[in-house]
Amino acid sequence: MAKPPRANAVVGQSGGPTGVINASLAGVIEQVCKNDKIENLYGAIHAVQGIVKEDFIDLKKLSVSDMEGLAACSSSALGSSRDKPDEEYCRKIFDVFKKRNIRYFFYIGGNDSANTAHIVNMVAAEVGYDLRAFHIPKTIDNDLLVTDHCPGYGTAAKFVSCAVMGDDLDNRALPGIKVDVIMGRNAGFLVAATALAIQSDGDGPHLIYFPERPVTMEKFVADVESVYKKLGRCVITVSEGICDTDGVPWTKKIIKQQETDAHGNLQLSGTGALADFLAAAVRQKLKVKRVRADTFGYLQRSFVGFQSPVDVEEARDCGRQAVKFAMEEQSGSVAIKRIGNGEDYAVELFCTELRNVAEKSKTMPDGFINAEGNGVADAFIQYVKPLTGDLPRTYFLGNYPRV
Amino acid sequence: MAKPPRANAVVGQSGGPTGVINASLAGVIEQVCKNDKIENLYGAIHAVQGIVKEDFIDLKKLSVSDMEGLAACSSSALGSSRDKPDEEYCRKIFDVFKKRNIRYFFYIGGNDSANTAHIVNMVAAEVGYDLRAFHIPKTIDNDLLVTDHCPGYGTAAKFVSCAVMGDDLDNRALPGIKVDVIMGRNAGFLVAATALAIQSDGDGPHLIYFPERPVTMEKFVADVESVYKKLGRCVITVSEGICDTDGVPWTKKIIKQQETDAHGNLQLSGTGALADFLAAAVRQKLKVKRVRADTFGYLQRSFVGFQSPVDVEEARDCGRQAVKFAMEEQSGSVAIKRIGNGEDYAVELFCTELRNVAEKSKTMPDGFINAEGNGVADAFIQYVKPLTGDLPRTYFLGNYPRV
Repeated sequence: MAKPPRANAVVGQSGGPTGVINASLAGVIEQVCKNDKIENLYGAIHAVQGIVKEDFIDLKKLSVSDMEGLAACSSSALGSSRDKPDEEYCRKIFDVFKKRNIRYFFYIGGNDSANTAHIVNMVAAEVGYDLRAFHIPKTIDNDLLVTDHCPGYGTAAKFVSCAVMGDDLDNRALPGIKVDVIMGRNAGFLVAATALAIQSDGDGPHLIYFPERPVTMEKFVADVESVYKKLGRCVITVSEGICDTDGVPWTKKIIKQQETDAHGNLQLSGTGALADFLAAAVRQKLKVKRVRADTFGYLQRSFVGFQSPVDVEEARDCGRQAVKFAMEEQSGSVAIKRIGNGEDYAVELFCTELRNVAEKSKTMPDGFINAEGNGVADAFIQYVKPLTGDLPRTYFLGNYPRV
Repeated sequence: MAKPPRANAVVGQSGGPTGVINASLAGVIEQVCKNDKIENLYGAIHAVQGIVKEDFIDLKKLSVSDMEGLAACSSSALGSSRDKPDEEYCRKIFDVFKKRNIRYFFYIGGNDSANTAHIVNMVAAEVGYDLRAFHIPKTIDNDLLVTDHCPGYGTAAKFVSCAVMGDDLDNRALPGIKVDVIMGRNAGFLVAATALAIQSDGDGPHLIYFPERPVTMEKFVADVESVYKKLGRCVITVSEGICDTDGVPWTKKIIKQQETDAHGNLQLSGTGALADFLAAAVRQKLKVKRVRADTFGYLQRSFVGFQSPVDVEEARDCGRQAVKFAMEEQSGSVAIKRIGNGEDYAVELFCTELRNVAEKSKTMPDGFINAEGNGVADAFIQYVKPLTGDLPRTYFLGNYPRV
């Protein structure tokens, strides 16, 4: 390995915003400022779009107060992009890197971002240009390979569990059937996190549905009916990616006007259609009057002021660590290894090859889902609990002794 | 005024849950425990339903830790009810009061709850029974008369403004058009509070629509087009109660299957239909691809762990004060008077007659809405700012100088 060159660096944020992607950015900034190999730190506005257009800001000039402020603020402060660069696009990126003597590339995003870093790195290697490309993971879906969990997931998990806590209390106060649709196209980690809302007997969510477990409408309605008959109410959380047993996402069956992004992904968020459809089906088949549906929508990834402290700290560490790895390695993706759990929860960061993360994704392990496919297993609770930080306690007095 | 009798008390929570209705309950409990006139404090499970069924718990036995816990927890810990008692129902309530020697009735709720307290109090007065009936205000809609603002509103206002902050940052990161539908059947106070998300030039919400200002679809789309042409993006907040210029709520025009509650209210919440309809209209007319819609739904009233501290304190004070007033007056509704604003924000509580609050509601004063009817006036910001407590700062770096 060559000595790290003295040169410029660029950092960008890609994909959907999260609650802590700015904390990773802050980690990169503070570590770069401690590093004598990196001269300028360019912030690319709107990710790869900003790189090819040379739309850069000077992140070393950011005030400490702004850096700390942005670390505490959700969303992507540099702006994002849904562009999925092919090799030609990556050659344009590389041209800018050569022109500006950029030899460090830090890219915060999901598996597509890891792939972009991977391709640009290969383009540079072809011509023997010493580029050090590092991917810093983020996603609320928690679906990246290798890493134990993704920065961004803990904060989103905290949000959805507190939302469902409140929703279940609401449903106790005014009983009925409530369907909540949660983000997660292919992986059920986020909808699974709503299980953290359960603190006492009878607490919802009473049913949880995952993209990993296809279910028919008949089974879904029968499950709801069974809970409703027992408790007189039912709170259900459903992943937006839920599929019928023929493998077709329910949303695809419902929404007439399809919209896909540049990555070929069907638009699942930003519409209440699935929730309304499920509520209507339940209302019609069970003849229950009070059936409501909510789609948590973009609040899950961008709500301001409700981060998981452990998630913020880990996200920031991933940013710092990417800069440190760039002094030792040619490329890689920062990954989290869990070295203790429960009260002894602790992690250490390591570097994995970009190709191990690029374009791939994971789903919930079988051991995290119950046998019925409509709830989580205890192993999942052990997994997720340390990631949200302490959660508020809920109170309902309806179970107190009568006088 | 007769000396306050030594007797039992009952407290109930009615209507939709809020973030601080349990704080008001905690205020009643702690003040009753300091009071030597009140023997037992019955908590009515599911409001008036619980009273007629004598479904009571003993709130004096609640541990301090549970009382403090519930004060910090949203929703209605005693359970709620949508029953709207008529005179016959109120006579049944009164029968239970006589049977249990209940002479203090504390009812936390909206204008319907004030009306229930009013009717029961009149029934008692007919036969010379010394009943002291007090209404403690709560609503996220902030639509009660007399009081400067309602406990519950500040917390909901904080939630929606932080949600829209995040949503606007998200929309800066990935530009497009975003429609957010906010609760508020007849009053626009809650949707107006989303204006608190605006911290810098260009911040959204760029357009706000109120139930108080009917608007045609043509005007709505033209407004959105105008913002989109200027900024390349647009975040819009719309009250669920928005009406066409013929006075008919848009939701009524959209949803085929109508559902009304016992109060004759159309179901506006718990469905994403309005948001999806508006998004589709904008997408179709402006030919913009990235148009998204979210309906904030029940999260606005029940989300756990995100209270406004000033709202909690005021809600609790209203509960305490109801008990104090009951030692001096025969009946009334606790109301808030603002005696200082801005940095010097302060309130004092007073007692108004139940009939001043019962069944009536208020809407946004004209001076709180801009001339165009699509945003707030500065007077509203001055009004709402002290009610949420400090809000987080937002960060977007896209406006920094380029290098």
